[in-house]
Amino acid sequence: MSVAELFGSPVNVVNVGIQMFADDLEVQGATVTHLDWSPPGGGDAAAIAALSRLEDPALQARIAEANQTAVQRIMGSQPMLVGFGQAIDVVPGMTKTTILHSGPPIEWERMSGPMKGAVTGALVFEGLAADLDQAAELAASGDITFSPCHEHGCVGSMAGVTSASMFMHVVENKTDGNFASTNLSEQLAKILRMGANDQSVIYRLKWMRDVHGPVLRAAMEIAEPIDLRLMMAQALHMGDECHNRNVAGSALLLQALASAITATDFSIEEKRQVFEFAACSDYFSGPTWMVACKASLDAAHGI
Amino acid sequence: MSVAELFGSPVNVVNVGIQMFADDLEVQGATVTHLDWSPPGGGDAAAIAALSRLEDPALQARIAEANQTAVQRIMGSQPMLVGFGQAIDVVPGMTKTTILHSGPPIEWERMSGPMKGAVTGALVFEGLAADLDQAAELAASGDITFSPCHEHGCVGSMAGVTSASMFMHVVENKTDGNFASTNLSEQLAKILRMGANDQSVIYRLKWMRDVHGPVLRAAMEIAEPIDLRLMMAQALHMGDECHNRNVAGSALLLQALASAITATDFSIEEKRQVFEFAACSDYFSGPTWMVACKASLDAAHGI
Repeated sequence: MSVAELFGSPVNVVNVGIQMFADDLEVQGATVTHLDWSPPGGGDAAAIAALSRLEDPALQARIAEANQTAVQRIMGSQPMLVGFGQAIDVVPGMTKTTILHSGPPIEWERMSGPMKGAVTGALVFEGLAADLDQAAELAASGDITFSPCHEHGCVGSMAGVTSASMFMHVVENKTDGNFASTNLSEQLAKILRMGANDQSVIYRLKWMRDVHGPVLRAAMEIAEPIDLRLMMAQALHMGDECHNRNVAGSALLLQALASAITATDFSIEEKRQVFEFAACSDYFSGPTWMVACKASLDAAHGI
Repeated sequence: MSVAELFGSPVNVVNVGIQMFADDLEVQGATVTHLDWSPPGGGDAAAIAALSRLEDPALQARIAEANQTAVQRIMGSQPMLVGFGQAIDVVPGMTKTTILHSGPPIEWERMSGPMKGAVTGALVFEGLAADLDQAAELAASGDITFSPCHEHGCVGSMAGVTSASMFMHVVENKTDGNFASTNLSEQLAKILRMGANDQSVIYRLKWMRDVHGPVLRAAMEIAEPIDLRLMMAQALHMGDECHNRNVAGSALLLQALASAITATDFSIEEKRQVFEFAACSDYFSGPTWMVACKASLDAAHGI
């Protein structure tokens, strides 16, 4: 028996909340107006109490003021590339057995495949495990500290896996004095940040640790700090989007570093390797813009 | 007496050729329709005969075919930067007492001030005169051969003054095998090509002859030929106009040369000077695009 038959006349229904009721009534010939609604805080009493507090006009004014301050801090930030250094030296709270990762806190068992791949690759790279199987055992043993990048003033691209020996950009927001860091582009290949961990990946990471990073660190000890906001603005005008399309930004950054790279004490062969690696994909400056944004956004943290 | 009074009624005149007649008639109250016309070839009988020949359908067909071929050669050209070298070594017909210049053939006396300034600066730079006064005397003496850049497979910017010791781009159009050259950017300052010739200009030209040019020459002996058409297309997409706005093109060119510059036998200080000079203005690649176009357009010469 349909609702119309039940009521003996056409029925108009306003349904609140659960879609299934509306669907059922429509099947039975009723005209239904559905209101998409759910209780605040999912019905949780503590959440409802917290949300109610937000309706306090004095608190709303404070929130509006804090938002205003946050936006001003972001807009007024001046992220400068001041150096390069190994994570163990430049990342607050870093230890030899810490692995940073992207996203919120997560334990080994719940990590996605690519993140697990990157973690085991990083443990082999750090010499903490002889091979990937041993690395997986170590990761599950509880002896490795997993922590989100963002809890250490860092940002990580993709899996975001960052270990103690990796070289990092060091960026200072000159306006507020806060620092941010991120590791170096592995360029376009099978790369750790995407979860790859074969010998080619580990070999590249070791070269980046032993040659690429040290050359860049030495260069920035010679070069003046580089205004990343200015350079990013120029790159945007030149057609980059400063995420995955970085032809202009990478060429401008390399141009700014070239004389200082030349001035370092490294061999001609090592310097050539750095120039050629930097130019081998336009993603060279991708992490640079990411960490510049991190330094700008962190200025609005904790207001 | 006006023309109207002369004829006793309003006069409408159609005037052919000489504007003055129309003006006079209008002043006297006549209505004038002026036809802007002059005899073909300025009335010169030989010119009229030559122009008449062009009306021959067979010749018109040959001209149309030649134009088609010319456009195809330009479109199909592939200008590659293959090296750098001194004018005396790479410019056909160059001698130690030849000065190339922009524009058509011109003798010393009729040159503009800036071109004279550049010529006297170049003669001092070449050690052919002890000072600018002596250089002016030498230029007027008939002992210097003045010749247009374009008669030597060259192109020159502004005054275009090019002398034997100056370093030149060497560009080959791979499609047709023709070569073109032009000298190097003096960057943004008082510069010879604008007619400046004081000590700062001469000093820079000597440094470009002794350091900048030799480093670039040695770099291109190591580097693969650079596809200038490809690089120019990329620079245009990045917002350059490849004449006076060359931020992208200059950074891309330097990026392409960086590893090879590093590999040369020059000192670290000399390489740093080259990197810093190249980056000190975005005009570094301006002459590069000019000579690329010269190589492309010369492919259509003499059809």
